[in-house]
Amino acid sequence: MIETLAVIGVGLIGGSLARDLRVLGLVNEVVGYGRSVANLQLAVELGVIDRAVASVRDAVRGADVVVVAVPVGSIARVLEEIAADLGAQTVVTDVGSVKQSVIAAAHAALGTHIANFVPGHPIAGTENSGVGASLEGLFSGRRVILTPTPETDADASARVQALWRTVGADVVLMDAGDHDRILAASSHLPHMAAFALMDMLVRMDEHRDIFSYSAGGLRDTTRIAASDPVMWRDIVLANKDALADVLRQYHQDVGELVNAIERNDAEWLLAMFKRARLGREMLNKL
Amino acid sequence: MIETLAVIGVGLIGGSLARDLRVLGLVNEVVGYGRSVANLQLAVELGVIDRAVASVRDAVRGADVVVVAVPVGSIARVLEEIAADLGAQTVVTDVGSVKQSVIAAAHAALGTHIANFVPGHPIAGTENSGVGASLEGLFSGRRVILTPTPETDADASARVQALWRTVGADVVLMDAGDHDRILAASSHLPHMAAFALMDMLVRMDEHRDIFSYSAGGLRDTTRIAASDPVMWRDIVLANKDALADVLRQYHQDVGELVNAIERNDAEWLLAMFKRARLGREMLNKL
Repeated sequence: MIETLAVIGVGLIGGSLARDLRVLGLVNEVVGYGRSVANLQLAVELGVIDRAVASVRDAVRGADVVVVAVPVGSIARVLEEIAADLGAQTVVTDVGSVKQSVIAAAHAALGTHIANFVPGHPIAGTENSGVGASLEGLFSGRRVILTPTPETDADASARVQALWRTVGADVVLMDAGDHDRILAASSHLPHMAAFALMDMLVRMDEHRDIFSYSAGGLRDTTRIAASDPVMWRDIVLANKDALADVLRQYHQDVGELVNAIERNDAEWLLAMFKRARLGREMLNKL
Repeated sequence: MIETLAVIGVGLIGGSLARDLRVLGLVNEVVGYGRSVANLQLAVELGVIDRAVASVRDAVRGADVVVVAVPVGSIARVLEEIAADLGAQTVVTDVGSVKQSVIAAAHAALGTHIANFVPGHPIAGTENSGVGASLEGLFSGRRVILTPTPETDADASARVQALWRTVGADVVLMDAGDHDRILAASSHLPHMAAFALMDMLVRMDEHRDIFSYSAGGLRDTTRIAASDPVMWRDIVLANKDALADVLRQYHQDVGELVNAIERNDAEWLLAMFKRARLGREMLNKL
């Protein structure tokens, strides 16, 4: 049971977590803070939070658990702003899609309070954002990766693990470097492929015809190109090295595909498409 | 009303068209031919066709309308095989995803019968194939592009237009070259992006972890990587020039994205992601 939960950034992820904890009766009070007053008002109207506060420090004071659910690029600033007001027992966690840069920021900002900081990343979400997009049950059956460091207090880690398990998540502990490498491939790279594809098409003179004569293939492939540009700019820069590695590989592979097409290499094409289909079948079975 | 419809290739498209025409009572008999005996037997069991025949010539003899619904790479051979047995009034159409190469094959194979050949392409489908994947209502509200040539008989064209309209399709007439260029961008390119992405990931040592920690983004982006490899090898080679043009551009754009990430160009990244999101919003509104 949490007496007071502070949610910094009441959007899709923060809002959905607050919803579930409230429905389950596992939190007495949810205090929310965010940059958009309209979004905070909506969060109160929707019953996602009990009250909105006007500063990040007001949100944190007296909280048992603080969930930092702002875009990756804003986490460092939020940690700096809350450091002085954290109680000795207050547990802090985040939901950022990149973990090494967040841990570095936490070390810089939190001082001795680093022991109560549990870096986290729920692998859930949609292309929509804001509290209006938050959902009950968003985390049910989804993975939540926690990347505690050697400094992380075992009780704090256990508390955050329990928090995510109560909303139905499958909690996994992982090294932050492994997390960043795996997510670069599993999430950040597909987003780059989709953004680049949609950007290219919208800049073509015939883009209206292209969209008009498209089918489910283009729609599915580019769904995540609707994702929040600011959030993704921050994720890309925060996970620059790991993402550049896999994106460079993708660039090379697309180049080899162009070459195979230009030399009419039917065998190469068939073998590649078969490997891709096999990969997709593996993914389907998970 | 069609007395006898011959479907050459009773798969997702040919099977779905036959289903709708039978349900609507617009065809007296559907004769099917295909390479897989098991698939033809299933087509009879499912009531998609009335009878299966053992040769493409048997399928065509006495047919009013012949729908060639085989993969693009097999259309030329089918047209050669049926040419001698076509009745003087028999209308022939195809459903290939590429039109210029099909028209060239038709010119070579059909002789004077070219007047009754109406090149077509229904923009519908899924990543599944075979008659087991065929569906009623697949074409309802979907575009069907017809690319008649100067030699195409107006009555034959009108008959094929009416055929597709009866199953709910929105029929559009278009120049074959325009078709191939637009489809290269709207369909063939997204397939290449998805195949290349999934092929790259499945070849990585950590592919099980990558798949395991993926979310809806990877799933949507690579859904079409499950598409039939043989069909896609044929489409790629049949539309080689137009596809290579757009894929080369995509390759260049992904390269520029890598460069922007490596130089930490936050402004470039934000502008690109915003353009992509705008494009996606345009697509959503269609």
